[in-house]
Amino acid sequence: MEETTSVRRKPTIRDVAAAAGVSRGTVSRVINGGHWVSPDARIAVEDAIRRTGYTANHAARSLATGRANSLAFLLTEPQHLLFADPTFALLLRGAAEALAQRSMTLVLLVAGTPAERASVTHFVSAGHVDGVLLISSHESDPLLEELLGAGVPTVSCGIPLGHDVQLPTVSVDEEGSARTMTRYLREQGHRRIAMIAGPADTPGGRYRLVGFQSEMGDAFDPALVEVGDYSQESGAVAMGRLLERGGDMDAVFAASDLMAAGAIAAARRAGLRVPEDIAIAGFDDSGLAATHEPPLTTMRQPWEQLSEQMVSLVLEVIAGRSPAAVTLPTTLVVRASA
Amino acid sequence: MEETTSVRRKPTIRDVAAAAGVSRGTVSRVINGGHWVSPDARIAVEDAIRRTGYTANHAARSLATGRANSLAFLLTEPQHLLFADPTFALLLRGAAEALAQRSMTLVLLVAGTPAERASVTHFVSAGHVDGVLLISSHESDPLLEELLGAGVPTVSCGIPLGHDVQLPTVSVDEEGSARTMTRYLREQGHRRIAMIAGPADTPGGRYRLVGFQSEMGDAFDPALVEVGDYSQESGAVAMGRLLERGGDMDAVFAASDLMAAGAIAAARRAGLRVPEDIAIAGFDDSGLAATHEPPLTTMRQPWEQLSEQMVSLVLEVIAGRSPAAVTLPTTLVVRASA
Repeated sequence: MEETTSVRRKPTIRDVAAAAGVSRGTVSRVINGGHWVSPDARIAVEDAIRRTGYTANHAARSLATGRANSLAFLLTEPQHLLFADPTFALLLRGAAEALAQRSMTLVLLVAGTPAERASVTHFVSAGHVDGVLLISSHESDPLLEELLGAGVPTVSCGIPLGHDVQLPTVSVDEEGSARTMTRYLREQGHRRIAMIAGPADTPGGRYRLVGFQSEMGDAFDPALVEVGDYSQESGAVAMGRLLERGGDMDAVFAASDLMAAGAIAAARRAGLRVPEDIAIAGFDDSGLAATHEPPLTTMRQPWEQLSEQMVSLVLEVIAGRSPAAVTLPTTLVVRASA
Repeated sequence: MEETTSVRRKPTIRDVAAAAGVSRGTVSRVINGGHWVSPDARIAVEDAIRRTGYTANHAARSLATGRANSLAFLLTEPQHLLFADPTFALLLRGAAEALAQRSMTLVLLVAGTPAERASVTHFVSAGHVDGVLLISSHESDPLLEELLGAGVPTVSCGIPLGHDVQLPTVSVDEEGSARTMTRYLREQGHRRIAMIAGPADTPGGRYRLVGFQSEMGDAFDPALVEVGDYSQESGAVAMGRLLERGGDMDAVFAASDLMAAGAIAAARRAGLRVPEDIAIAGFDDSGLAATHEPPLTTMRQPWEQLSEQMVSLVLEVIAGRSPAAVTLPTTLVVRASA
């Protein structure tokens, strides 16, 4: 223990371990990704790295490997959605935690316009991040091919539509999730069930509708389908159209909690009680579901696991491996709205 | 015009200009920062750069200058506040627009924990961004000195407290703004005015209270001051304490719109009508102020100008100049709450 934080020669892992009061193995694990390290130990090691000046080595290591030690959380939506749609915040929080555990930097990039896309492609291709977590890619988004063309390790959240490319994806079982919710609504005795689907150029828009349709079977009525853009406003508009059409509905399955909240507001304006007169269920369990009045029955997406798996997969790609696609299950959460 | 997008030799600015249908001067302005270029022309040039393949040159230029062509929007608060506090979203939106005009990339970094701070310092020092817009620095935040020590061009939003350092700042006139609101409340006939101040280790917390106290003069009563953390919840808690103390208040000046909203909720729970029984004013005009019920009387911060000035100043620092601090005025916005 004669090695203290005041060593003048180039500090080593041994110095950091002594300063942190942990084993060299723990220090090594923190430096090499942070797996299997307790938060307390990680903080102690990070602190010891700073005190001993081992940071320089750390930087040198990243210089030697040519790695930026960072990942981009790349949102291909207009920036305001980052704040309007709680699901992005949930994914971002999970990614931040997954990267903090690995002592990596999370870089948030938004490419919602062609100009932003050009800047972001340039930034990412220049090696300022080691890889990209691609969030919310609409069908045939040119960004995806630009990234892959530039050789940037990329993992997509959801299966990208309209691309003839191979890249690792982390998704939920969209179709199966929609079948589960539809089955639940039918089991509650509902017969005339409408769907407010998401945009058809997103996997959640397309495959949740496929699952709904296949579970409804002969009872499926295309006149009871409207499409929104996942926003609360679009849910209210879609519900207004369904009510105008007078389809004698007893339940509505919305492809996002925000759209379910909008649909509930529109139903109330039309004098309907939820769930007494009409049951309305959502999808996501995105935070607002539990606090909504009434609390929303919904399909819970495994937000933390989605982020953790994306980070884990892109690190595998960076390491030169070709990981398989990951599909995660969702959970039916029954609350009061349906 | 014989030069088309299908040129095979290395494309030049002339090729880009021909493809975009603009002058070479316009192309040059887009490439060199985007000043004085209309959005349409910028989009046409960006598009032509992509079509001609001039991107490679652009990348080479950034390689030659050693610049990443990006700035960090660095939030030194826990990540969840990015979504909970609308003022960060307003600053971020303004910064994104200011950078898009200059064809630069906005990189959002969050350093709310010591571990995140270590990663972020490392990332920034490694040159992945050309400069930093430092948002919401609490007193003696070590990050600031780490950045300046690493020679990273940095501009602070608000005057950083407790640092013996010189760095360019963009602020609003906190003290003068608070005096304006206090004067307004007194002119409405209010005599027992309470303040819900922000944290004393932030410039908005400290100097808005200074302005309030100096404008109140002899009428200042320290028993009518509570401190929150700018959040809605903290505003409700502070209001609860003020009401318990029974200070016979007729008005409350909260140092953020969120705290004003919390204070109004607490006042209502206590059976008070706003503004009939008690006037409650906010600070920020952060979006929620206009849609709140009742709409909030508040001090409007010039969000777009704040972001634009921060970007402009940090680019001056990067260019080797030493810009002076910028102080921007706020505007009293009278709505219904006070």
